[in-house]
Amino acid sequence: MSSSVHNNTGPVQLPEERRFLSASEAAALERELLEEYRFGRQQLVELCGHASAVAVTKAFPLPSLSRKQRTVLVVCGPEQNGAVGLACARHLRVFEYQPSIFCPARSADALHRDLTTQCEKMDIPFLSFLPAEVRLIDDAYGLVVDAVLGPGVRLAEAGGHCARALATLKRLSIPLVSLDVPSGWDAEAGGDAKDAVQPDVLVSLAAPKSCAGRFSGRLHFVAGRFVPDDVRRKFGLHLPKYTGTDCVASL
Amino acid sequence: MSSSVHNNTGPVQLPEERRFLSASEAAALERELLEEYRFGRQQLVELCGHASAVAVTKAFPLPSLSRKQRTVLVVCGPEQNGAVGLACARHLRVFEYQPSIFCPARSADALHRDLTTQCEKMDIPFLSFLPAEVRLIDDAYGLVVDAVLGPGVRLAEAGGHCARALATLKRLSIPLVSLDVPSGWDAEAGGDAKDAVQPDVLVSLAAPKSCAGRFSGRLHFVAGRFVPDDVRRKFGLHLPKYTGTDCVASL
Repeated sequence: MSSSVHNNTGPVQLPEERRFLSASEAAALERELLEEYRFGRQQLVELCGHASAVAVTKAFPLPSLSRKQRTVLVVCGPEQNGAVGLACARHLRVFEYQPSIFCPARSADALHRDLTTQCEKMDIPFLSFLPAEVRLIDDAYGLVVDAVLGPGVRLAEAGGHCARALATLKRLSIPLVSLDVPSGWDAEAGGDAKDAVQPDVLVSLAAPKSCAGRFSGRLHFVAGRFVPDDVRRKFGLHLPKYTGTDCVASL
Repeated sequence: MSSSVHNNTGPVQLPEERRFLSASEAAALERELLEEYRFGRQQLVELCGHASAVAVTKAFPLPSLSRKQRTVLVVCGPEQNGAVGLACARHLRVFEYQPSIFCPARSADALHRDLTTQCEKMDIPFLSFLPAEVRLIDDAYGLVVDAVLGPGVRLAEAGGHCARALATLKRLSIPLVSLDVPSGWDAEAGGDAKDAVQPDVLVSLAAPKSCAGRFSGRLHFVAGRFVPDDVRRKFGLHLPKYTGTDCVASL
């Protein structure tokens, strides 16, 4: 575990007061939840997907949107980040947004398949391909949710289908909401401006990853109220308090 | 499926407008969610437990409670209703209430065991026995959550440990919140006044069961926003709209 962490707004923070986790620390935190606390993956994905949808409602409140602006394209990768995207899409539907889903690569994961069935049976449209012409996407949707790649997955490792989807997303004019990390960003170093998506809204799951320090978009939420206090203390996380029954907090 | 349903406030309702499900319809609705929609049991228990905790915060808002009144005894049976109680207790802890848990009977269920571990590791106390002297409970807790028995489980079938716990609960003076059905009530006929718990607050899970028509307590919530519209229509459920991102609605 590193002894100090930089962020983009202040000086070096003491380890017991930092706001960001490295990719390996984030993996260790998740292992702690799964193995020590016996959280289930289905349970964590549901909590994160719900909180991500709530974050979207805070960034883009339904009453402020025209009927057309309520259309949300949720792009879901084949790993856990994509599973959270599927749960997020379902909750957005319940909150009366109009989600559509695009999965650039097929997933062999049973949880992914079950979450897909839930969305399909709730009449959420799945796109069979992503138009390469970005104007078509800009015209059809109010915003895009990027649930393509989680922390620690480099663009080069992600496979051609995901890389092509991200190449399209980074040319869009409509707002982009990234779940956990902006897809393809190095979890520590952040994203190279020319070659990476630049989200307007970032929803950190469980806790912000180091690259979030380089996020310069409009709104940054953390969705990690389910992380027990003892785990937060163990990883030295200093995060804003959640209020009432809120599952997300602004950073 | 019955062709009409009575409720306690109005005339016979048309099947497409009823508010209550029989025990067998409730079981069929759950089967539909699990088998057709591929919801996971872990996922449904988490959604119901979270919504139950939110209902408690609406009935007993934290700022209106003294420090002592924030103590909540959650009594969890060995079946699914008890699993929801365990998830509810964890969310109450996250919402800064002070839950304690009593499980009158051991459960062999893996989900039950995992939810128990989550609570134990979050330092939620488990009582090893329930004091027979009700004054001790009335003095120690602000309210009790009854997650002992779900719909379709008769008191006579529940086993001595659960029956004894319920015999104690029904003599308490502090407010009682029942999850899904008041434990031991016949899901259709309701509860005999002399021999059954009489909750102050009822949180119907997914949809109200017929016995809820005989509930005469202070507040009745339904926590079933996750039930897809098509399923709601199929079972002819006419329920109040949920607003914003609320997971519960008042009935």
